[in-house]
Amino acid sequence: MATSAEQIKKLRELTGAGVLDAKRTLEEHNGDFDKALAILKEKGMKAAAKRTERVAKQGLVETYVHAGGKMGVMVEINCETDFVARTQEFQELAHNLALQIAASNPKYVSQADIPVNVIEEQKKVFADAAAAEGKPAHIVEKIVQGKLESFYKKSCLLLQPFVRDDKMAVSDLIQVAIAKLGENIVIRRFTRFELGEG
Amino acid sequence: MATSAEQIKKLRELTGAGVLDAKRTLEEHNGDFDKALAILKEKGMKAAAKRTERVAKQGLVETYVHAGGKMGVMVEINCETDFVARTQEFQELAHNLALQIAASNPKYVSQADIPVNVIEEQKKVFADAAAAEGKPAHIVEKIVQGKLESFYKKSCLLLQPFVRDDKMAVSDLIQVAIAKLGENIVIRRFTRFELGEG
Repeated sequence: MATSAEQIKKLRELTGAGVLDAKRTLEEHNGDFDKALAILKEKGMKAAAKRTERVAKQGLVETYVHAGGKMGVMVEINCETDFVARTQEFQELAHNLALQIAASNPKYVSQADIPVNVIEEQKKVFADAAAAEGKPAHIVEKIVQGKLESFYKKSCLLLQPFVRDDKMAVSDLIQVAIAKLGENIVIRRFTRFELGEG
Repeated sequence: MATSAEQIKKLRELTGAGVLDAKRTLEEHNGDFDKALAILKEKGMKAAAKRTERVAKQGLVETYVHAGGKMGVMVEINCETDFVARTQEFQELAHNLALQIAASNPKYVSQADIPVNVIEEQKKVFADAAAAEGKPAHIVEKIVQGKLESFYKKSCLLLQPFVRDDKMAVSDLIQVAIAKLGENIVIRRFTRFELGEG
């Protein structure tokens, strides 16, 4: 079965794989796009995992101001070398992350950054609400778990759906960049100011 | 004695006073520039003090990125109306404050924002250093007070000398803007990211 250039292009976009790697994987699975995608993703994750232990202290501080100065975002993205920091690819990533933060207002970079007391508080709120509706205890537990997952996805930048392509999470975006650029990439920190809030 | 246009211009720059007010004050004191400056400053402070109780929730979020993305600053400046926020004067103030933060790396907006434990810690460091040099107790106290004042001036944005004119403190800059624009103006918050710090 012939593999279309379109499919290869899409595979590369979604996984950061090289053109030959994408082509070969697609051919080996008789043009089954979803199968090839799953395999390349898995491969990318393994390669990325190896890179995430490397020190990332270079990178960019990127800002984005919206609505004529009513809202602003600043984010620091790290990579391993200044060379990669200067690539258009990395700069686009930084810009996309700033847009993401502006649009989706995350509170934390990753789930690990949520303070324990915040999680406990959320659990209590969800449990009290479910109990107030008269749900039995074993159901309450499931509801709390489900609501907690939603809370993580909403408040953690890496877990949010990417605003420019909601089939990806922000963590996928980072993984694709790691695969393409061949360096560990880390979202170090961000701030978001909205005029007169708080 | 004739008052020079140059003197009036300088008085207005330093106090935000109107042209007639500057001219009259200068004439009333026979062209004594320093005297007129002191009087206009006093007047400005009184007017500003009245304004600082008014609610400031409009304004601008301003960013500044330096050294090709190696350092970034974001600051929120509040005023009372969107009309004032859109003036060139206010935008210049916001820009100057972002530059100030980039250049002088303050940690707090004002002295009131320094946590008590930080002050206590600094006191101890200064006192230990002075005692180690064998200074008597009543001298140590004076040394600590002096070093503490320097610490405040270094770490509080409002107390820092303005980088573009070190005869003014940043708080003077704000006061001049309040006098010129006729609204309460407040530096609400700022952040500064330097690549790979911490």
